[in-house]
Amino acid sequence: MLNRKLAAEATGTAFLLIGVVGSGIMAERLSPNDVGLQLFQNAAATAAVLLAIIVMFGPLSGAHFNPAVTLADWALGSFPRRHVLAYICAQITGAVVGTVVANLMFDLDAVNWSTKTRSAGHLWLGEVIATVGLVALIFSLVRTGRLRLVAGSVAAYIGGAYYFTSSTSFANPAVTIGRMFSDTFAGIEPASAPMFIVMQLIGLVLAVGLIRFVYPDTQAASNP
Amino acid sequence: MLNRKLAAEATGTAFLLIGVVGSGIMAERLSPNDVGLQLFQNAAATAAVLLAIIVMFGPLSGAHFNPAVTLADWALGSFPRRHVLAYICAQITGAVVGTVVANLMFDLDAVNWSTKTRSAGHLWLGEVIATVGLVALIFSLVRTGRLRLVAGSVAAYIGGAYYFTSSTSFANPAVTIGRMFSDTFAGIEPASAPMFIVMQLIGLVLAVGLIRFVYPDTQAASNP
Amino acid sequence: MLNRKLAAEATGTAFLLIGVVGSGIMAERLSPNDVGLQLFQNAAATAAVLLAIIVMFGPLSGAHFNPAVTLADWALGSFPRRHVLAYICAQITGAVVGTVVANLMFDLDAVNWSTKTRSAGHLWLGEVIATVGLVALIFSLVRTGRLRLVAGSVAAYIGGAYYFTSSTSFANPAVTIGRMFSDTFAGIEPASAPMFIVMQLIGLVLAVGLIRFVYPDTQAASNP
Amino acid sequence: MLNRKLAAEATGTAFLLIGVVGSGIMAERLSPNDVGLQLFQNAAATAAVLLAIIVMFGPLSGAHFNPAVTLADWALGSFPRRHVLAYICAQITGAVVGTVVANLMFDLDAVNWSTKTRSAGHLWLGEVIATVGLVALIFSLVRTGRLRLVAGSVAAYIGGAYYFTSSTSFANPAVTIGRMFSDTFAGIEPASAPMFIVMQLIGLVLAVGLIRFVYPDTQAASNP
Repeated sequence: MLNRKLAAEATGTAFLLIGVVGSGIMAERLSPNDVGLQLFQNAAATAAVLLAIIVMFGPLSGAHFNPAVTLADWALGSFPRRHVLAYICAQITGAVVGTVVANLMFDLDAVNWSTKTRSAGHLWLGEVIATVGLVALIFSLVRTGRLRLVAGSVAAYIGGAYYFTSSTSFANPAVTIGRMFSDTFAGIEPASAPMFIVMQLIGLVLAVGLIRFVYPDTQAASNP
Repeated sequence: MLNRKLAAEATGTAFLLIGVVGSGIMAERLSPNDVGLQLFQNAAATAAVLLAIIVMFGPLSGAHFNPAVTLADWALGSFPRRHVLAYICAQITGAVVGTVVANLMFDLDAVNWSTKTRSAGHLWLGEVIATVGLVALIFSLVRTGRLRLVAGSVAAYIGGAYYFTSSTSFANPAVTIGRMFSDTFAGIEPASAPMFIVMQLIGLVLAVGLIRFVYPDTQAASNP
Repeated sequence: MLNRKLAAEATGTAFLLIGVVGSGIMAERLSPNDVGLQLFQNAAATAAVLLAIIVMFGPLSGAHFNPAVTLADWALGSFPRRHVLAYICAQITGAVVGTVVANLMFDLDAVNWSTKTRSAGHLWLGEVIATVGLVALIFSLVRTGRLRLVAGSVAAYIGGAYYFTSSTSFANPAVTIGRMFSDTFAGIEPASAPMFIVMQLIGLVLAVGLIRFVYPDTQAASNP
Repeated sequence: MLNRKLAAEATGTAFLLIGVVGSGIMAERLSPNDVGLQLFQNAAATAAVLLAIIVMFGPLSGAHFNPAVTLADWALGSFPRRHVLAYICAQITGAVVGTVVANLMFDLDAVNWSTKTRSAGHLWLGEVIATVGLVALIFSLVRTGRLRLVAGSVAAYIGGAYYFTSSTSFANPAVTIGRMFSDTFAGIEPASAPMFIVMQLIGLVLAVGLIRFVYPDTQAASNP
């Protein structure tokens, strides 16, 4: 059973990075004159693939695809501590494989390290906010027994957060690592990645605190 | 319990303004040559964040994030009169904090008063129409026991109303106040805000009348 | 009860035309250099307002907002013949009022007749196809007891059909009449309207035949 | 009963091609200066029509509209082997008719063979990935008793996959054949079609293997 769950996490995260990196390449090639249009295409495709992979693997692995979500599920839910590391490894592996597949699909070298610097205080604030919102959203639904709403609302949230956070909302350490491997629209240079991940973990801690305050108990399924 | 509800209203409204103001800044920076493209990005991101915050806090506070909705819920629903003021204060506080966070995320001064004049008879008509539609939509669902549809349909309505009302559909006094604090795409100069709020309250009264006529009773949950 | 239903049909159709005409004006003003971008904004806003008005008034009036749907409901469903004319009058009245409100919201004369010619064989074929799809979609759902899916799928269908039919998918006689009253993006000159309505009625007849063949019986609610 | 199912498959696939080809023509005519904008309009309209036709015919024929899905349903589900060929013929017939209707609606010759070459290793990889994801998505839902989610998530997946796969995600042999008949945005020259179909079949086989591993049993309906 754990093997199947890890396969789901790796496959889902691979598709997530195919979605994020692939649509970024497509958008920058097809709309070279308007960066807003590039980001919009990237955001819409990312939201779409997120919805698909969450419904695909939700019943099996929980559809985390994100170490921050796995850690939050251990802190707030009933995710077993002994599986945390395996999940995170599967997610990172999937993220790297997905980025490589995206590169190959678009006729690029399998690995081409990103040279895009993303390093500034206001971008770090963006990552904190992005992760607080993502984790708080998911665990609001978990705590109120409305898992069926996760796919649609996480897709909408991330699609929107590409715009409303200055960092374009990575909000996911595995995705951050994967995006180092492509020197294209969605890339991040390796030197910028660690601080993004630190900010995501800070956002995770803040979200856990917020959820513990606003939804102190896990409720039975509520209707709406 | 009231404290948790107020925290939900403040946090949700803060995320709403982060969404509205932040995506407006992103869009005007990335697509400087097409205002329609800017508004489209702004509208889509606003719809997305609205969906997320409504599902996030709906079961706890009702997810009003809007003094007009709180007042309508008191007039049409069972919202206790003694909590109206506390809700509105939480919403306005959240709106201002959210705008400040959006400013900081995009490397702007925490507070930079908007200088965008929005003052004309046809814009005021736009705000009346926008608010009538929003409040009538929400309370059609409340009166027919279909709260589960609020998040998706309010998100769609506001996303659309950014386009089909001439005022780009503020439809929310707390949002109107928050948007005074950012001299960017979504801003409104303080001198223009009061009339927008007056028009929203007129729209609220008209919507309450409309709902009382078309849905005179609160029905049990209907299926579709 | 009939009065409340007629109020729902008129109000909903008015909002539909506010959505169609208003977003068309906004889009052509904000994106003057790309007609595709104008149509996209118009299509997205139309889909959004459709979703909102269908959930708003569905439980009360059935949310037709379209004489073709009312006639199909009489032919295929249980809509009483004696209410057909009243429904159609309410829809047309709402359509005209909505267009006038949209004109006023955007600082135009209340009535300004469209001068946009839409008259050619291939456009008429577009209207037939558009109406076949719309009516067949709605009554597939009616015949299989899945009314809860009407709002989302009709919104998606019309949003898509703005693109995939050459006529941009009016598919609604009341909307066609309303759109004569605004000389803006969504307008149609009065001389072009009658043939559009004839084609919509042909599409209606074809759709009724199609539904009678593929879904001969009304089934109990099916699950998916 | 089989006749009604075949009529549903043919009609649905015809509407799918009307959606794909028609919106492609509309987009390239209206937005001649930005190919990204053309693809975005095409992707959104395709997603919309997919959602509509799946809800329309799902309860009757299963809403395959795709030989790869029919074959997978035979391999993974309970689709009877003796109907496979009839389904595929109905799908291909519908695809060709739909493309012809799209051509006529836009005032083009009924048949105008595409001259667009789509032939390269990285595009073929794109088709494999696109088909793996599509088939795995559908049968994840089938195996977990969540058929009600197919329409929305397949629409989202394909809309996204237009961007994140280099081939713009045909992922459907009947669609590939249909798109040969129009020398417009969505076309594919006949010489390029066979390898696309081969890649789709490889993707199908991989997806069947993936599903057998991650979802070895068909489960009763799970809630979320």
